[in-house]
Amino acid sequence: MITFEELVKYAKVTGFVYQGSEIYGGLANTWDYGPIGSLLKQNIKKAWINKFQKETPNNVLVDTSILLNSRVWEASGHVGGFSDPLTECRACNNRFRADKLIEEFDGTNADGWSHERMHSYLVDKKVPCPSCGKVEWAPIRSFNMMFQTNQGVVQETSSQIYLRPETAQGIFINFKNVQRTARKKLPFGIAQVGKSFRNEITPGNFIFRTREFEQMELEFFVKPGTELEYFAYWKEYCMNWLKNLGLNGERLQFDDHKPEALSHYSNATTDIQFKFPWGFDELWGIASRTNFDLNAHQKHSGEDLTYLDPETNERYIPYVIEPSVGVERLFLAFLANGYQIEELPDGTTRELLKIHPALAPYKAAILPLNKKLQGDKAWEVYNLLSKYFDVVYDDTQNIGKRYRRQDQIGTLLAITIDHQTMDDDTVTVRNRDTMEQIRLHVSELKNYIEEQTAF
Amino acid sequence: MITFEELVKYAKVTGFVYQGSEIYGGLANTWDYGPIGSLLKQNIKKAWINKFQKETPNNVLVDTSILLNSRVWEASGHVGGFSDPLTECRACNNRFRADKLIEEFDGTNADGWSHERMHSYLVDKKVPCPSCGKVEWAPIRSFNMMFQTNQGVVQETSSQIYLRPETAQGIFINFKNVQRTARKKLPFGIAQVGKSFRNEITPGNFIFRTREFEQMELEFFVKPGTELEYFAYWKEYCMNWLKNLGLNGERLQFDDHKPEALSHYSNATTDIQFKFPWGFDELWGIASRTNFDLNAHQKHSGEDLTYLDPETNERYIPYVIEPSVGVERLFLAFLANGYQIEELPDGTTRELLKIHPALAPYKAAILPLNKKLQGDKAWEVYNLLSKYFDVVYDDTQNIGKRYRRQDQIGTLLAITIDHQTMDDDTVTVRNRDTMEQIRLHVSELKNYIEEQTAF
Repeated sequence: MITFEELVKYAKVTGFVYQGSEIYGGLANTWDYGPIGSLLKQNIKKAWINKFQKETPNNVLVDTSILLNSRVWEASGHVGGFSDPLTECRACNNRFRADKLIEEFDGTNADGWSHERMHSYLVDKKVPCPSCGKVEWAPIRSFNMMFQTNQGVVQETSSQIYLRPETAQGIFINFKNVQRTARKKLPFGIAQVGKSFRNEITPGNFIFRTREFEQMELEFFVKPGTELEYFAYWKEYCMNWLKNLGLNGERLQFDDHKPEALSHYSNATTDIQFKFPWGFDELWGIASRTNFDLNAHQKHSGEDLTYLDPETNERYIPYVIEPSVGVERLFLAFLANGYQIEELPDGTTRELLKIHPALAPYKAAILPLNKKLQGDKAWEVYNLLSKYFDVVYDDTQNIGKRYRRQDQIGTLLAITIDHQTMDDDTVTVRNRDTMEQIRLHVSELKNYIEEQTAF
Repeated sequence: MITFEELVKYAKVTGFVYQGSEIYGGLANTWDYGPIGSLLKQNIKKAWINKFQKETPNNVLVDTSILLNSRVWEASGHVGGFSDPLTECRACNNRFRADKLIEEFDGTNADGWSHERMHSYLVDKKVPCPSCGKVEWAPIRSFNMMFQTNQGVVQETSSQIYLRPETAQGIFINFKNVQRTARKKLPFGIAQVGKSFRNEITPGNFIFRTREFEQMELEFFVKPGTELEYFAYWKEYCMNWLKNLGLNGERLQFDDHKPEALSHYSNATTDIQFKFPWGFDELWGIASRTNFDLNAHQKHSGEDLTYLDPETNERYIPYVIEPSVGVERLFLAFLANGYQIEELPDGTTRELLKIHPALAPYKAAILPLNKKLQGDKAWEVYNLLSKYFDVVYDDTQNIGKRYRRQDQIGTLLAITIDHQTMDDDTVTVRNRDTMEQIRLHVSELKNYIEEQTAF
């Protein structure tokens, strides 16, 4: 089993992920995605859009602003309530999330506790400061996690805005626009992929919890009373999406929230948890959010956000199911699931990223056996295939080393152009996982790769 | 010829673009993209990535943070110099860009003028305030266009960061990481697509100049001395990309910057201008930036950013060519270029978005002639095609109205499932531009659409 440290090292060495602002000593908790990392992110988003929107005729896509009118966040409750319990060690002045201090101290879950109760617990149980070891906790206060900035040339309260902490509200405030212009009837969904920002007190675990991250959210609007049926539907749908993309079922589980732990607006919530190298942790949140958001926006904006049901002629505010997942967490899960040191029959080992073909950064590597003799022909094959797939050309070192390099970054197929290619236009195609080779005609490659990488 | 007002109205009514935060009265200068708008944006990005990275073996992709260490912006010159000349009308307290006031007053180009010179011009020529008409201009000051925010739980100078005003610097600071992990030799390029933010004093012209926007930038690194040759190459490459995607050549022109108007770090710059409804304006900037950026980062970070040329064994800092374009401007150009009211031979008219097939939001509409008789079959066709293409299903109203609706939003093909389909599995396929119909077997559709939409 690969350790977390090994996984992080692998991601950095191969060029999946670099430390953000690295040449300047970094910027805490930011990460940049290198050539193969950006392709993997791109493929994850494509696989999500394909199944949550493109192939689902009820669902459409939107792409809304990161910068919104602040009244959106007042209505949604983020200005008032999107905060973490912050405490400070009076001895060393370091700041921490009180609930996390308690959880890490003895496993106690402090969700829903008052600030006073958390503070008393820290003091009574003598929970030590993780930095200096003393027990001198300041009273707990709410720390709002929205990043603030100012838009326009006048720095005053009226110009103060927030970076969105979620993409969902951009969907809710456009519910009417989308319903009208796309002429949608319930049930239907609005999907969005985009950056969100949360000024987390304790980000961490590599790319698992970052202040800047990319969300893929679906808001699926339904008739009130039918929401639990659709909640069950999307719960299974998300789980199947993960399994179909190759995540090991034994590393996946539902964490259904108990009624007493539900948010005030939700009548059902579950998390899909994945077994990360540090244990099971949240991958995907799926919530039945009732009509809370649309209702709040109707009240605060004064706009009519009801839907006229053409079958019953009733007017009502739709209920909504929200599956919400982060691209970076999926990225980490797919790496953790697929990266391995494989022992081969001959006693040697190879580094292997066994990742679903649709997610593989490169679908094929184009390898001329001898670059002087077959280089031009190999470029022909490259030019043919790069119109359809992400492929990479490599003519350095011996063929064995080139295979290993591609196995390490998950390239599905190694296509070798050899002396026989010059005679009959056939190539060898080696599979990453089985290492078996077949011989195909160049004209068969496009369809073969398309079949092999379908999702 | 369509007016600008008509174009904006068209974009809003059809659901390409909505006003941002509309139900709350909007947030100045923000826009949300609806179902077909998000597909068009997605297709523009795909067409760019395909030609600037995927099919160009020298080029790789990265995906870097919006939040960077502030020292990046000190090194790049953005903290000191990324500002506009701001003046205020003392009568009404409205604020304006001084250079734009002058340009709009009498067409004078104030690029490179000192603040004093601009102020004197405003006063001497009695340039009136666009809001109140008076001439009471305050002295001009520099207004930095970077959005500021604070990261972390302590609000102090050390936690102050900026939202990136360009994606380019994320590329420069990762030059070494990418070169090493992707084992690249000069010349090679690093491409990136992502959001940037500029607190413009005078944004406007719908989605043309917005404070939040999406850039597609390529930094193409070359050996010093060869840069003007590559500058010429990318200049033509960008222009051809636009023309190949159907922009009218008569609406495109180069605006080569005169030597005296070049930025201090550039030895050649050109803009590709497009004739927008208000006249020719900048679409794409292409600059030969010498080694300015890498040099600045080497100096400020202390990291060695030189490249060891394997052919000559020399060490040098590469020069760079930067073609930089915004997704939203392209979006507006493609709409302006393609939207028309076409007069038909029978004297009637139709609204038509004549846009390149690769950019069309929907490649095909699936239309059962009679939803009771052919609805199930039409869904079969939908399910078959939606695995490969963005397609839309429509079974409302008569077939003529459905054709018009799809023409209006640029859907390339209208596929009608009729009584004959039930017998022989053939469908009619109507082309958006010619309105001609052919009959194809369902099994031929995938390849036909692939051919028709290739780019």
